[in-house]
Amino acid sequence: MSSHKTQVEPDVAEKLLAFRGHIATTAEEIVFKIFPAKIPQLQAWVEQTNDVASDLNISQASSSTDTTVYPAPAVAANEERSPKKRKRTSSATDAHSNGGEARADANPSNHVIYSQLIHANAHVRKVHLELKKEFEELIDLCDKVKLWVNLTMPKIEDGDNFGVQIQEEALNELHRAQESGYNLRDACRTHHLTRAKIAAKLIKYPNIEDYALALQDHDEKQLFMARQHLIDLRNVYAILTDILHKNIQKIRAPKGNNSVSMY
Amino acid sequence: MSSHKTQVEPDVAEKLLAFRGHIATTAEEIVFKIFPAKIPQLQAWVEQTNDVASDLNISQASSSTDTTVYPAPAVAANEERSPKKRKRTSSATDAHSNGGEARADANPSNHVIYSQLIHANAHVRKVHLELKKEFEELIDLCDKVKLWVNLTMPKIEDGDNFGVQIQEEALNELHRAQESGYNLRDACRTHHLTRAKIAAKLIKYPNIEDYALALQDHDEKQLFMARQHLIDLRNVYAILTDILHKNIQKIRAPKGNNSVSMY
Amino acid sequence: MSSHKTQVEPDVAEKLLAFRGHIATTAEEIVFKIFPAKIPQLQAWVEQTNDVASDLNISQASSSTDTTVYPAPAVAANEERSPKKRKRTSSATDAHSNGGEARADANPSNHVIYSQLIHANAHVRKVHLELKKEFEELIDLCDKVKLWVNLTMPKIEDGDNFGVQIQEEALNELHRAQESGYNLRDACRTHHLTRAKIAAKLIKYPNIEDYALALQDHDEKQLFMARQHLIDLRNVYAILTDILHKNIQKIRAPKGNNSVSMY
Amino acid sequence: MSSHKTQVEPDVAEKLLAFRGHIATTAEEIVFKIFPAKIPQLQAWVEQTNDVASDLNISQASSSTDTTVYPAPAVAANEERSPKKRKRTSSATDAHSNGGEARADANPSNHVIYSQLIHANAHVRKVHLELKKEFEELIDLCDKVKLWVNLTMPKIEDGDNFGVQIQEEALNELHRAQESGYNLRDACRTHHLTRAKIAAKLIKYPNIEDYALALQDHDEKQLFMARQHLIDLRNVYAILTDILHKNIQKIRAPKGNNSVSMY
Amino acid sequence: MSSHKTQVEPDVAEKLLAFRGHIATTAEEIVFKIFPAKIPQLQAWVEQTNDVASDLNISQASSSTDTTVYPAPAVAANEERSPKKRKRTSSATDAHSNGGEARADANPSNHVIYSQLIHANAHVRKVHLELKKEFEELIDLCDKVKLWVNLTMPKIEDGDNFGVQIQEEALNELHRAQESGYNLRDACRTHHLTRAKIAAKLIKYPNIEDYALALQDHDEKQLFMARQHLIDLRNVYAILTDILHKNIQKIRAPKGNNSVSMY
Amino acid sequence: MSSHKTQVEPDVAEKLLAFRGHIATTAEEIVFKIFPAKIPQLQAWVEQTNDVASDLNISQASSSTDTTVYPAPAVAANEERSPKKRKRTSSATDAHSNGGEARADANPSNHVIYSQLIHANAHVRKVHLELKKEFEELIDLCDKVKLWVNLTMPKIEDGDNFGVQIQEEALNELHRAQESGYNLRDACRTHHLTRAKIAAKLIKYPNIEDYALALQDHDEKQLFMARQHLIDLRNVYAILTDILHKNIQKIRAPKGNNSVSMY
Amino acid sequence: MSSHKTQVEPDVAEKLLAFRGHIATTAEEIVFKIFPAKIPQLQAWVEQTNDVASDLNISQASSSTDTTVYPAPAVAANEERSPKKRKRTSSATDAHSNGGEARADANPSNHVIYSQLIHANAHVRKVHLELKKEFEELIDLCDKVKLWVNLTMPKIEDGDNFGVQIQEEALNELHRAQESGYNLRDACRTHHLTRAKIAAKLIKYPNIEDYALALQDHDEKQLFMARQHLIDLRNVYAILTDILHKNIQKIRAPKGNNSVSMY
Repeated sequence: MSSHKTQVEPDVAEKLLAFRGHIATTAEEIVFKIFPAKIPQLQAWVEQTNDVASDLNISQASSSTDTTVYPAPAVAANEERSPKKRKRTSSATDAHSNGGEARADANPSNHVIYSQLIHANAHVRKVHLELKKEFEELIDLCDKVKLWVNLTMPKIEDGDNFGVQIQEEALNELHRAQESGYNLRDACRTHHLTRAKIAAKLIKYPNIEDYALALQDHDEKQLFMARQHLIDLRNVYAILTDILHKNIQKIRAPKGNNSVSMY
Repeated sequence: MSSHKTQVEPDVAEKLLAFRGHIATTAEEIVFKIFPAKIPQLQAWVEQTNDVASDLNISQASSSTDTTVYPAPAVAANEERSPKKRKRTSSATDAHSNGGEARADANPSNHVIYSQLIHANAHVRKVHLELKKEFEELIDLCDKVKLWVNLTMPKIEDGDNFGVQIQEEALNELHRAQESGYNLRDACRTHHLTRAKIAAKLIKYPNIEDYALALQDHDEKQLFMARQHLIDLRNVYAILTDILHKNIQKIRAPKGNNSVSMY
Repeated sequence: MSSHKTQVEPDVAEKLLAFRGHIATTAEEIVFKIFPAKIPQLQAWVEQTNDVASDLNISQASSSTDTTVYPAPAVAANEERSPKKRKRTSSATDAHSNGGEARADANPSNHVIYSQLIHANAHVRKVHLELKKEFEELIDLCDKVKLWVNLTMPKIEDGDNFGVQIQEEALNELHRAQESGYNLRDACRTHHLTRAKIAAKLIKYPNIEDYALALQDHDEKQLFMARQHLIDLRNVYAILTDILHKNIQKIRAPKGNNSVSMY
Repeated sequence: MSSHKTQVEPDVAEKLLAFRGHIATTAEEIVFKIFPAKIPQLQAWVEQTNDVASDLNISQASSSTDTTVYPAPAVAANEERSPKKRKRTSSATDAHSNGGEARADANPSNHVIYSQLIHANAHVRKVHLELKKEFEELIDLCDKVKLWVNLTMPKIEDGDNFGVQIQEEALNELHRAQESGYNLRDACRTHHLTRAKIAAKLIKYPNIEDYALALQDHDEKQLFMARQHLIDLRNVYAILTDILHKNIQKIRAPKGNNSVSMY
Repeated sequence: MSSHKTQVEPDVAEKLLAFRGHIATTAEEIVFKIFPAKIPQLQAWVEQTNDVASDLNISQASSSTDTTVYPAPAVAANEERSPKKRKRTSSATDAHSNGGEARADANPSNHVIYSQLIHANAHVRKVHLELKKEFEELIDLCDKVKLWVNLTMPKIEDGDNFGVQIQEEALNELHRAQESGYNLRDACRTHHLTRAKIAAKLIKYPNIEDYALALQDHDEKQLFMARQHLIDLRNVYAILTDILHKNIQKIRAPKGNNSVSMY
Repeated sequence: MSSHKTQVEPDVAEKLLAFRGHIATTAEEIVFKIFPAKIPQLQAWVEQTNDVASDLNISQASSSTDTTVYPAPAVAANEERSPKKRKRTSSATDAHSNGGEARADANPSNHVIYSQLIHANAHVRKVHLELKKEFEELIDLCDKVKLWVNLTMPKIEDGDNFGVQIQEEALNELHRAQESGYNLRDACRTHHLTRAKIAAKLIKYPNIEDYALALQDHDEKQLFMARQHLIDLRNVYAILTDILHKNIQKIRAPKGNNSVSMY
Repeated sequence: MSSHKTQVEPDVAEKLLAFRGHIATTAEEIVFKIFPAKIPQLQAWVEQTNDVASDLNISQASSSTDTTVYPAPAVAANEERSPKKRKRTSSATDAHSNGGEARADANPSNHVIYSQLIHANAHVRKVHLELKKEFEELIDLCDKVKLWVNLTMPKIEDGDNFGVQIQEEALNELHRAQESGYNLRDACRTHHLTRAKIAAKLIKYPNIEDYALALQDHDEKQLFMARQHLIDLRNVYAILTDILHKNIQKIRAPKGNNSVSMY
């Protein structure tokens, strides 16, 4: 490095070294302690889903969907619909205090509102929320290992790049795992949106039986896929662990020796 | 592996070994017992579909579609429409107890609801549900074999990768089989959604004959495709079995010797 | 194959052998008896379409389309619209018994229904149904030959793969033929959906002449394409037969000798 | 060919030979008689379009479009709108006999129908219909030559494939020509659909001048493109003839000698 | 060429020769007379657009757009709206003679028609029509040169294909020029459709200022792009001329000698 | 060049030579005078945007958006809405003179018009218009240099094409710059269309706060991106100048010597 | 460089040199001072998000969403809705002074407006605005380093391009970072648009529970992703710093020596 050029200041360099050390320690911990521990733990959960009492057992599907289109709740019922969401009580009360007038005012437009009620599937939501935590953990763990592998990459050189290729393959695998984590974490949100669309159709065409059956099949698919995603999660941890352990030498030191600190 | 680095703890390593052993035993069982047994079993089913009495015989199509647009059922009829879905009786009753008021309230908006009735095709649904179980089994079996092949892959090395290529081809084949399993499993849900769309059009245009004929052809296609999917399923098992058996040596030991345990 | 590993049980192995034998016999029968016989048979049909009396002669198009938008049939006419579809008489009767009330109830919503009548094209439908059987046969025959070629593929080896390449080319050709079979089989269904969309536009804009002419051209195209698909079908059989016969040696025995039974 | 395997039966083999001979004779006739004759014939037509009296002369465009939105024709006028389409008189009469009631019944829904009239462009339609015949002929001729080239392809071999490459290039050229034939043949149908969409907008917004001008430009484009398609057709024949004649030796006998009959 | 095969008949061969000669003469004329003459001519036009009085000068944009939404013209005004389009007077008169009744009949549906008036931009249309002629000429000229180059291509041979590559590059360049000609020729039609869409929005939301400004910017863009397209046209001629002249030897005789007549 | 073929006539050749000379002189002027001068000039502008008083300073965003949905202006207010657009006063007056009747006539349809007012963002528009001139200049300059490089390309030859590759890379860079110029020039038009869509939603749902905030964020993004585009513009000039200057020798004379005039 | 050609004038050359020097100094400052300092700073922020009191802690999600559909605010409430946006008080007042009349006028159209109120999520907005500043800084820093690397690229030469490849990889990395900066900066705007769409559905179907839950999940995802984007930002700085420092020699002098000034 030519000496007359700008350089990192010593105290920052020190902080960077500490940061890199922290990242490396964390990543090694994940690769050798956390990933391996996840496998038997998730395997136990997978096995438990074969119990018909398990939330993830497909037999739970049939009873959890309610395809009835209920008439619009009376105003009183509406008042009590979602008490746990009434966090902002003051403003809600305010709105209601002048709500009498307002509603009178709003009445004429009432007829373009579809006020029929269709219940959400509480069982499916519960299952989604349980799994979401698992996917968040996967995202977080992959992120940390990815950063470590990235910072372990050597200076770009012509030739002797086999170790770098192994690092890149590990990064790809980690990236894919993290991406699937993001997608699966989002499953609950997209589930509600898709389900709401079918529900809206069912309100508009209450006697097209196929819409009711589609709603039922939608929920059943959620449950089936949730269990599959749990299995996938176990597989992801098993395969990541396997690849990282088998190739750990080149990942740690792609050029055969530990990378020398730059500062 | 450099000794001063983080390592897997002995008890976890033991669990991992057990896990790998379990995965391997299961996969070998599938490849040599379950896959081969599936072939004659499905072949028998395929042959049976040539019987006109079989649910999957195409001759069943003509009588199963009802394209009539029935007038909206009277409220009483509606009450009894789906008794088996009334699991949540209490809340349903509640809703109905104040339903009188509510309905009065909701009446003005009634005119944007298409309350005509079009029946679902019960025969097609029955056929879909029977096949769904088969596709779920395929998904599950492929998953287990895939995990085994993945964990049997050796450390990444430069050269001598012919065995790994065979493993990857087997994985591709298993992945494709599993993907088609996911798609076919979902056929019932998408069938109802597509059918409901045609039904909605038929309600809006009850005298455009082409919509009635499209509904009929839609159902007939479901039945034809269901039988094809059964045949595909048999073929998938036959070809998977063939590829895995012919190449089992390299899949088990891509580098020519059994992979040595890492722990 | 290492002896201490899981193996196929003798009775299943026997069944598999029988299955493979059955597949091979059937496929050879198709390749040398059925495919060749199809060519002159379809050629005769193609020639016959030049007769103006043939269903597939394009001259039939002009008289088969009725673009008139008829007023909504009276209720009585509606009762008798589709007597042959009234299979489920009991439930239909039930619906009608309380239909009086229901209809009164449903009356206000009547005004969003487009009850004008547009006839389907019976001639085009008849032609589609005749051809559909041919495409189903093509799908079935290709399926059987494909399975045979797949099961004749040898163990994956490094080098001497020219025979396998020929097998793969044959598989591609068979796959393409089968795919086109699936698409063409579906032509009737998509025809009704597309036609219904134009009909719906014609009801909404009865005096935009271009919609009436589009409907007419749509039907004429169906007839023209139907004849082309018949010609394509003949070509498909001729080319499949040609490729399979010319390359039969390598397809049967890609490594130069008959593949030895594995069991 | 191994002797103990299934073989084509003698009488079918004879029919196949006759079929191949017929295909070859027809194709050579097309390549050396029909294709060459087409070129001067189409060239004459192209030249004639420079005459302002020619249907394809662009000067015809300005007078052929009528962008006026006419009020809905009175019912009487409607009765006589399309007398030549009244082929199915009996059923039509039936519908009309009870049409009086029906119409009364249908009246309330009348207000969602846009009954204003916009004329189709008769001149553009005439031009499209004239050209359609030419494109059908192109499709048919290419089909026959393609089949011949396909059946002339030799057994797949390793090496000496230059002749096969020429055959494949000829097939590509023929395929492209045929595809463009299919597209251009369909121009009339898509023209009516696109025109009808603009007409529908013009009915809804009769005083947005740009919709009227878009309709006018749409028609003018049809006429301009029709002439271009005629020129393209001439070019297609000229180029096909040129390529096929220059390379006829390798197309007829890709391996240097005439292919020996298989049967 | 084997002598016992079908051949072109002498009189047709003669016509083909004449055709090829005609094509060649025309193309050489275009390449060496017309293309070069276009360049200074278009250059003069481009320079003239810097004059603020030029139709293509961007300063013309500001005054040409009228974003006012005018109320629906009175019926009398409507009668005289487009007198020059009233070519088909007879049928139009018929329609109007019973138009009184019809309109009365149609009145109830009147309220879904947006009868407000928004003027087209006459200046932009004029500019588009002027340029359209230029693009038609470009299409025609490229077509003729392309055909010539195509017919000058030699028999397909293994090796010595550098001249053919140059011909193909020239064809690509000509094809790209022609394609852009087709697109630019169509600019007027798509302009009216896009403008009409914005106008329709402006009628629906007359006080969303952004729609009025979007209409204004739309027109201004048309004028700016029209001038750019004129510049592009000049560039296309300059570059085509340059490439064709520099490489004319190989284009005329890709194998180094003039291609010998085939007949 | 074979002497008996068509050639360019001397006076046209002379004009072409003059044209090429003019193009070359202009391009060299741009590359060595105009491009370099642009850099410090734009750099000064960029620096000035850090002043909070600058139009492009992001601090200007907060005060420039007005998300209020104003009631429909009274007719009188409407009269004076856009006085500067009333260029075509005569016709506008005509329309208004019979506007009284017309409006009465149009009244029933009034209720499908959303006549609420939402102001455009005058500040954002001003900024867009200032930048538009810069992008037009970029388009024009790149165009001229591109044409020069194109005309400097040598005859196509086998080998010694390194200079041509450099020319092509320069062309790519110039093309990319010009394309971005076209896109950025169009930003104002697309801004108004996107903004109008949000405004339309805000009129329909005036109390969904997120629509008001989306409008505000839309405007703020316009201002932020405008500044970024100014920076991009400076970078484009800096990089174009750098590439063209460093490689000017090969661009001027790709074969090492100046290209000899052809005429 | 040939001497008789156009050249950069001395004073401009000097300005360019100064500009390049300024760019280089700034970029080196960023690479060695600012980027490294960002890492510990963002790391601290990431760690702080584990505190439940942190705005970015996921536990904040549950209380921040209000899915209640409030009735339309009374006019008085509306007056005070957004006092801080009333910057243009004068015009607003004007509009209101004649608003009495106007509103009366607008009344009939009132019924197509959905005037129910749904609150935005103030907490999510606050978080987005905090992060936006960080992404703007990232965009700005990457821009400056990119320009420097671009201007450091040498003349294009055949061979010895390894240094250029490293520069290009650095540019890719910087470009990717900047692109993600642009996307993440835009998150707030797209959040409001997506949220508003769900809110609009919730107003239309207030009793489809899934829409309320989708809104809740939407907000929760925003918070989760915001934290992830903060982590990504830290990673981007860490990886950019790492790559740039490790390869600084080739980036500064791709040909091994410092590039010589051109002027």
